[in-house]
Amino acid sequence: MKYLEEIGLKAKKAATLLNVLGVERKNEGLRSAARSLLDNAADILNANELDIKAARENGMMESLIDRLRLNHNRIEAMAKGLLAIVDLNDPVGEVISMTTRPNGLTIGQKRVPIGVIGIIYESRPNVTADAFGLCFKTGNAVILRGGSDALHSNIAIVKAIKKALKQVNLCEDSIQLIEDTDRETAKEMMRLNQYIDLLIPRGGAGLIRTVVENSTIPVIETGTGNCHVYVDEYADFDMALNIIDNAKTQRLGVCNACESLVVHSKIADKFIPLVYERLTEKEIVFRADERARTICNKMEPATEEDYGKEYLDRFISLKVVDSIDEAIAHINCYNTKHSEAIITNDYNHAMKFLNEIDAAAVYVNASTRFTDGGEFGFGAEIGISTQKLHARGPMGLVALTSTKYIIFGNGQIR
Amino acid sequence: MKYLEEIGLKAKKAATLLNVLGVERKNEGLRSAARSLLDNAADILNANELDIKAARENGMMESLIDRLRLNHNRIEAMAKGLLAIVDLNDPVGEVISMTTRPNGLTIGQKRVPIGVIGIIYESRPNVTADAFGLCFKTGNAVILRGGSDALHSNIAIVKAIKKALKQVNLCEDSIQLIEDTDRETAKEMMRLNQYIDLLIPRGGAGLIRTVVENSTIPVIETGTGNCHVYVDEYADFDMALNIIDNAKTQRLGVCNACESLVVHSKIADKFIPLVYERLTEKEIVFRADERARTICNKMEPATEEDYGKEYLDRFISLKVVDSIDEAIAHINCYNTKHSEAIITNDYNHAMKFLNEIDAAAVYVNASTRFTDGGEFGFGAEIGISTQKLHARGPMGLVALTSTKYIIFGNGQIR
Repeated sequence: MKYLEEIGLKAKKAATLLNVLGVERKNEGLRSAARSLLDNAADILNANELDIKAARENGMMESLIDRLRLNHNRIEAMAKGLLAIVDLNDPVGEVISMTTRPNGLTIGQKRVPIGVIGIIYESRPNVTADAFGLCFKTGNAVILRGGSDALHSNIAIVKAIKKALKQVNLCEDSIQLIEDTDRETAKEMMRLNQYIDLLIPRGGAGLIRTVVENSTIPVIETGTGNCHVYVDEYADFDMALNIIDNAKTQRLGVCNACESLVVHSKIADKFIPLVYERLTEKEIVFRADERARTICNKMEPATEEDYGKEYLDRFISLKVVDSIDEAIAHINCYNTKHSEAIITNDYNHAMKFLNEIDAAAVYVNASTRFTDGGEFGFGAEIGISTQKLHARGPMGLVALTSTKYIIFGNGQIR
Repeated sequence: MKYLEEIGLKAKKAATLLNVLGVERKNEGLRSAARSLLDNAADILNANELDIKAARENGMMESLIDRLRLNHNRIEAMAKGLLAIVDLNDPVGEVISMTTRPNGLTIGQKRVPIGVIGIIYESRPNVTADAFGLCFKTGNAVILRGGSDALHSNIAIVKAIKKALKQVNLCEDSIQLIEDTDRETAKEMMRLNQYIDLLIPRGGAGLIRTVVENSTIPVIETGTGNCHVYVDEYADFDMALNIIDNAKTQRLGVCNACESLVVHSKIADKFIPLVYERLTEKEIVFRADERARTICNKMEPATEEDYGKEYLDRFISLKVVDSIDEAIAHINCYNTKHSEAIITNDYNHAMKFLNEIDAAAVYVNASTRFTDGGEFGFGAEIGISTQKLHARGPMGLVALTSTKYIIFGNGQIR
C-alpha cells in the first residue's frame, strides 16, 4: 500500500475510536501528552538543534530561525497549551436543537467530530502540539504535514505524543506526521478525499493559495489579513490615534495588524499630521495617496498595489475618502475579509459600517488586534478563517466539529 | 472582458445590493417573480417545447424527457414554490450569540448572506426557479449553470424572473444564467474564486465528482445516498417490514431511498422470507450474500459492488451479520454518509447505532425517506449535504448564510 494511503487508513481507524471516546479519556490523553513533552524535552531539543544547524547552513534569515527554535520555555509553553485545552469545554455530543415533528419524529442535531483533519503548515514546530491538542479534544484524528525545515523537531514532538497516548492506552494513530516533505507528496495529500475530511493550511499567503488551488478535499482558508482602520469625520482623535497605534505597532507580523488607514477628507487636514507623528515615532513608514501627501509631504506615494498588500512589516498605506460610502467601497475592494474597524461617534455611520463591510470581524471603536480565539473567549484557536463556509473568524473547538441528525421514531413511514 | 468574468462581476455587484435589502423587499421580489412565471407561461412552454423536441431528436429516454418537460401545472408549482419561500423566516440578520468580554468589548455573531452562489445542475428546469428563490431570500446573488438539454427552458425562466425583479426595482443580476453550456466553460466557472463564494452541484454522482475534482471554489456535495436499514435481533417485524417497504418502494429514484438491508443472523431465518415476500410483491429484486441465499434461494447473489451501489432502481442488496458491531462496521464501510436506520426495541442498540453510524441522518425505528428539508420542518431545501463541513443533511435557508462578528467597543486596545 502506498505511504499516504496507509497513513490515511490508520487515521480513519483512529477516528472511529476517537468518535466514541468520552471527554475524560480525551483529557487523560492530553495530560499524558503534556507530561511526555516535558519528559522528552532533551530529545526534542536535540532534534531541534539538527533543524537549526541545517537552517543556518541553508542560509535561513535569523528572524525565521527564531520561529524554528525551541528551548525549554517553549516546550513548557507547548505542554501548558495542551493543559489549557484540557480545561476547555468539549463541544462534541452537544445537541444544538431538538424538536418533535407533527408525525411524532423527534429530530435532534448533535455535534460530532469531523473525522480526519489534515494540517499543512510551515516552520513553527509548536503548531505540531497545538494542532494535535485541538483536534484530539474534538475527537478528530490529525495528519500533520509540517515544513521540511522543522522535520526533526516535528518527528521528536510527534514521537513524544504517540508514546504518551500509548501509555494511557489510547490510539497512537490519533496523530500522524507525514515525514516525506516532498512537494509532490503534499499535493497527493491534498487529493486524499477518501481519508481526509478537512484540510487546514496554516502559513503564508503562498501556502494557502497552493492548497486552495490543488486540494479536492474541503479547505478552510486561514490567515491573510489586510486590515483597515477607517477614521470617520466624527471620530474621537485620541481614541483613533490609540487604536491605530495599537493595531499597527503592537505586533507587526500578525494577520490582525492594521495595514491600511482610510481617513475622511473633512478631518484629513488635522488628523493626518497627528497620525503621521504618532506612528513615525515608532518607525512606521506611510505610503499615501496624493491628497494625503499634499497635507503631509513626507509620506511616500502609494501605488495601487500598496492598497492590496498585507505588509506584515513597518509600512502602512493611507487613503483619503469623501464619504463613508467611499470608505466602505474602498475597504470591500481591497480587504482580505479579515478584520476592519471604524472610529466614529456617529451612530448611523457605525451601523452602516457594521452592516456593509464584508469581513469576518467588523469593529466599531476598537483595535483589529482583538480578532483572536483567546480574546473572543474561545480559549484556543486553530486559525482565523477568512472564508465564508463552515467557520468565519477565529476558529475554536466548535469549528472542528460537524453535526449529525439523530432521529427517534416509533415506526414512522412517509 | 471575458464572458464569465463579466457575469461574476455583475453578480458581485448584485450581492452588494442584496446584502442590505430588508426581508420585505426580498419578498416583494419573490412575489413578483412568481407572478411573472405565470404571466410568461406561454413563452416558457414554447421554449420548453424546443428542448423536448431536441431531446427526442437526440434519442433521450422518455423517463428523462419527463423530467425535462414543463406544463402549466409544473409552472404553477414553480410559482407556488417561490411563494412558499416568501412565508419562510429570513435567517439573515439574526444575531446567534452576543457576549460582553471582561474588557467591555461586546462581540456578536450575526448571520449574513454568503455572497455569490453558483449552482451547477442537470436537466430539471424547475431547479432554476427553486435555486433562485432560496438564494434570493437569503440575500445571495446566484449564477446558474444548467444542463444543455434544458437551455431554452432555463433562458425563458430566467428572463421572466429578471423582468419581475426589474418591475419592482430590484437588481436583475441577482439571477444570471450561463448560456454557454460547453463543458470547458463549466470548468472555468469552477475556478472563479474571485467572484463565486460557494458552488453547489445538484445532480448525479458523476456531476458531483466532476465539480469536487475541478473546483477551487468551496463546494457543498449533495445527494448521493446508499442508505441502509438494519434489522436488529430485537426488531419488531411488522414495523421493520413497513419501514423497509416505505423506504424502498415509496419512490425508487430518490437519494433517501433504502438501497441495502442488513439483517441480524438470529432473526434471519424468520425475517428474510417475510421481507422477500413483501418486496417482491412490488417487483423489487434482491441481491443477497450467501447466508441469506441459503435461507431464501430465489435471491440473486450480491457482489462486493452491490453493497456500495446507489441503485435508484428496483434492486436492493442484503447482508446477514452476527452482531450490531458488524452491522455498524458494514454500513460505515459502504454508505455514502446520507441516511441510515436501525429497527430495534433494544435501548442500548439504538443508542449505539445513533452514536457510531457516520451519516448525516441516523434513524431509530423510522424510514430513511424523512431526510428532506420539508419533512425536517425547514420549509424548503437547496439539497442534502453528504459532507461534513458547513452543512450536513437537508440544507434549508440557514445553510445559505454565513456569519460575521460585529464588535462594539469604546476605545479598546490590546
